[in-house]
Amino acid sequence: MARQSLSGFPEWTPAGRVVEQHLLDHVRRTFELHGFAGIETRAVEPLEDLLRKGETSKEVYVLRRLHDEGDSARERQLALHFDLTVPLARYVLEHAGALQFPFKRYQIQKAWRGERPQDGRFREFTQADIDVVCQDTLPFEFEVEMPLVVAEALDGLPLPPFRIGINNRKVSQGFYEAAGIADVEGTLRTIDKLAKIGPAGVATELVEVIGTTSGQADAALALASISAADESFADSVLALGHRSALLDEGLEELTRVVAAGRQHMPGRLVADLSIARGLDYYTGTVYETTFVGHEGLGSVASGGRYDSLVSDGRRTYPGVGMSIGVSRIMSRLLTEVTASRPVPTAVLVAVVDEATRHESDAVARALRARGIPTETSPTADRFGRQIRYADRRSIPFVWFPGTGEVKDIRSGNQVAADPAVWEPPKEDWWPRIVANH
Amino acid sequence: MARQSLSGFPEWTPAGRVVEQHLLDHVRRTFELHGFAGIETRAVEPLEDLLRKGETSKEVYVLRRLHDEGDSARERQLALHFDLTVPLARYVLEHAGALQFPFKRYQIQKAWRGERPQDGRFREFTQADIDVVCQDTLPFEFEVEMPLVVAEALDGLPLPPFRIGINNRKVSQGFYEAAGIADVEGTLRTIDKLAKIGPAGVATELVEVIGTTSGQADAALALASISAADESFADSVLALGHRSALLDEGLEELTRVVAAGRQHMPGRLVADLSIARGLDYYTGTVYETTFVGHEGLGSVASGGRYDSLVSDGRRTYPGVGMSIGVSRIMSRLLTEVTASRPVPTAVLVAVVDEATRHESDAVARALRARGIPTETSPTADRFGRQIRYADRRSIPFVWFPGTGEVKDIRSGNQVAADPAVWEPPKEDWWPRIVANH
Repeated sequence: MARQSLSGFPEWTPAGRVVEQHLLDHVRRTFELHGFAGIETRAVEPLEDLLRKGETSKEVYVLRRLHDEGDSARERQLALHFDLTVPLARYVLEHAGALQFPFKRYQIQKAWRGERPQDGRFREFTQADIDVVCQDTLPFEFEVEMPLVVAEALDGLPLPPFRIGINNRKVSQGFYEAAGIADVEGTLRTIDKLAKIGPAGVATELVEVIGTTSGQADAALALASISAADESFADSVLALGHRSALLDEGLEELTRVVAAGRQHMPGRLVADLSIARGLDYYTGTVYETTFVGHEGLGSVASGGRYDSLVSDGRRTYPGVGMSIGVSRIMSRLLTEVTASRPVPTAVLVAVVDEATRHESDAVARALRARGIPTETSPTADRFGRQIRYADRRSIPFVWFPGTGEVKDIRSGNQVAADPAVWEPPKEDWWPRIVANH
Repeated sequence: MARQSLSGFPEWTPAGRVVEQHLLDHVRRTFELHGFAGIETRAVEPLEDLLRKGETSKEVYVLRRLHDEGDSARERQLALHFDLTVPLARYVLEHAGALQFPFKRYQIQKAWRGERPQDGRFREFTQADIDVVCQDTLPFEFEVEMPLVVAEALDGLPLPPFRIGINNRKVSQGFYEAAGIADVEGTLRTIDKLAKIGPAGVATELVEVIGTTSGQADAALALASISAADESFADSVLALGHRSALLDEGLEELTRVVAAGRQHMPGRLVADLSIARGLDYYTGTVYETTFVGHEGLGSVASGGRYDSLVSDGRRTYPGVGMSIGVSRIMSRLLTEVTASRPVPTAVLVAVVDEATRHESDAVARALRARGIPTETSPTADRFGRQIRYADRRSIPFVWFPGTGEVKDIRSGNQVAADPAVWEPPKEDWWPRIVANH
C-alpha cells in the first residue's frame, strides 16, 4: 500500500479539514443568505463538450474503464470537468424547463486539471462558484452584486487583507478603438503580460508583434496604469483623451460597481484597468482577487460577465459569475491557522467499569441531545489513561459519571454538573480556528 | 452542447439538492455529535492500490491526460476510487504520525464505478462513511456504537422505516465448524444467494457444489432462518445444537449489539443470521440496512469489523465502519419528498425605482445580518412583476421599502414591519422538506 502523497492532489489532516470546513460553511452560508441555490453537477462531461474551450484541452483527464468489454464504443468518451462553468452551461440547457431565470446558483465542488502542479496550482482542487444566468437579458445589478457577495464571503475568514480588482471589457475595447488600435484582442493579451515582462517589454511587444504605433502603445499602458478604490478612476481615463460611446458605457458600468464597493465594502473593491485576462471571453465586468502582499499566489477569486454562457439555438443565456479558489486559499491559510482541536468532541464521558458503562452512555446521550459533541470512553481504563485519551485529542472536558463531576482538563478545574443543564463555554463547544503556532 | 443526461450519473434539480443537502447536513451533524472527525481524501488512487481488491478491478475508471507528452510514463497510473475504504487505509498509513488512535473519522464524498447502471446503482454516487481505526487492538464498544450512530443518522430523516440487520462472522464460522462443514467461505457465499435462489436452491448448491452433507446444509439453512429484534436469537442458535468456543464468543458479541439496539433504538436493530455478504472480508460484526417494504433497493448502509484495514509491516490497524449509500437513498427519497422552495430566499425586497435601490439594498442587508436569506429584486419593474418573480420561486415574503410593509404572498396578508426586528415564521426561514405532491 503506497504511502507517498501524490503531487498536486492536496489532502488535509483532520485539523486542516476543520479549517476547510469552516471556510466552506461560511462561504455556503453567505451564498445562501444572498439567495443563491446550491447545485452539484456530475464530475464528468462528454469529452467533446469540454474540448470546445480549445486552450484547456491538454489539461483534461480522460476516463476509461479498466476492463472495457467493447460495450463502451457505443458510449461517449468522458472526462473530468476542469471547472464548474462548462458543467453549469450544460446543466442549464439540460434542466432549463425546471429552472427559473434569473437562475442564481452556487456550486462547491472539486475540479481536475492534468497540468504541472506548482504553488497554488493543483491537479485536484475545490472551487466555490456563484453565477447568475438569465434568459436573453441580464440586469446589470447582478454585475454589481457579484463582487459584494464574494467580498462578504472572504471577509468573515481569518485571511490576509484582500483586494478585488474590477475592470470592464467595454472600457478597454472602447478606449483601444478610440485610440485607433486595430487588434483589440492582441493588445489585451499583451497587456496581460504586464506583471511578467514589465511596461517596457509590453510596449515593445505591442509595437513589434501587435502592430500598434508607439503612441498607441503608450496610451494602452497609460490606461493599464490606472487604479483607484473610488470613482476617481473615470476622470483619469477621460484625461487620456480617447473617447468613444463604448468607453463611456463601460465607464458608467465600472463606476456603479466601484461606487457600490466603496459604500458597502470599503477598501475591498478597486478599479484596476490593468486586468486583461479573460477579456476574450468576458464581455462586461471582470473580477480578479489577490491577497495584499501575496500577489504571487495569483487570483483567489475571479470571474466576469459573459454575453452567452450557452445557447440552445432559440435563446441565449447571458450570465455573470465568480469562482473562489478554495484549495489555493487553503494552501495559504494553513500556514497561518489551525483548529483548536482535531475532533468535534467537547466532552469525553469516562467509564468507571464495564458494568456501569450504561450510566456513562446515558450522560453522553443527554449531552448530545442538547447539541454538545460527546464521546464515551471506549475502555474502562484507570481515569489517568482516559484523561490522556482526551488530552491527546485536545478534548477540553472529561465527565466522571460516578461522582457526577466534569473537569476542564486544561485548568484542572472540576465541578459538580447535571447532564441535563451543564454546557461548555461557547468557545469550547465546537473546534475554533486559531493561530498556527 | 450536449443536453442528454448520462445514465448512471444522477443530478438533482435545485429542489432535489435542497433535500440532499438536508440529508447530508443531518448525517454530518449526527457523526460530529458522536465525535467523528471529518476528512476528505483525493478522488484518485494509484491503480495498483485499487487493484488489490481483485474482484472490483473491472469497475475502475482509469485516468489519462488527453495530451500526454510522455512525461506521465514516470508517473503512477491513477484511477478514481470506487469506495471510501481503500482511500481511508492509504490515508491512515500516510498520515499515521499526525493521527490519534482510535481514529474516529467520517467522510462524505463521491465515488465512481464503471458498472452497468440500474435501480439504486450508479456510476457516480455519494457515500457517507464512518469508521473507527485503531492500532493493534480495537475495543469491542465501537462495534456496538456503529449501528447506533447510523440509526440515529437515518432516524431524523423523512425515510421509510428501516431495519439494520446484524450478524457476526464468528457465529456463522463457529457454527459451521461445529457442524463439521469444511468449506466455510463457500458456505457463506452460497447462503448469500438465499434471497435470489431460495432455500431449496441453496440446499442443492451446498451439497452439490460446496460438498456439505444434506444434514449440514439443513443446519446452515436453519441458522440463516434465525432473526430477532432482541437477545432471544441466541437461544434459537443454541437450540440447533452445534456449539463451539468461537460460536459462543460470536453469540456474546452479537448479543451485546442487539441488546444496545433494543435499549436505545428499539425496533431498528435486528439480529439477522442470514447475512453472509462481506464475511470473507469482515471478521466480527457485520451490518446491512434495508428499508422495510423496499428490500429490492438493496442495502442502504452496510459495513462491519475488519481485523486489519491495513498494515505497515510493524503494526496492524483493525477497524469497524459503516457506509451510508446517500445516492441510493436519494433515488428513493425524491419519489416521496421535495423542498418547500428551490431557493434559500425567504424575502424578496422590491425596488420602487433605480433611484431608491439603495433603500431596498439597506433593508436586504439588515435582514441578512440577522440570518434571514434575502434578495433584492434585480429590476424596478412594476410590483406585480416583482411579486411574480417571488411567486415563481416560492419565495414566501415580498418587502416594500416605500411603505415599509412586508407581504406574505401566499395569504396576501400585508403588515408594517421594521427590518431591524421582523422575522419570518420559523417554518419559512429556510426551505423545508415536504411531501412530493
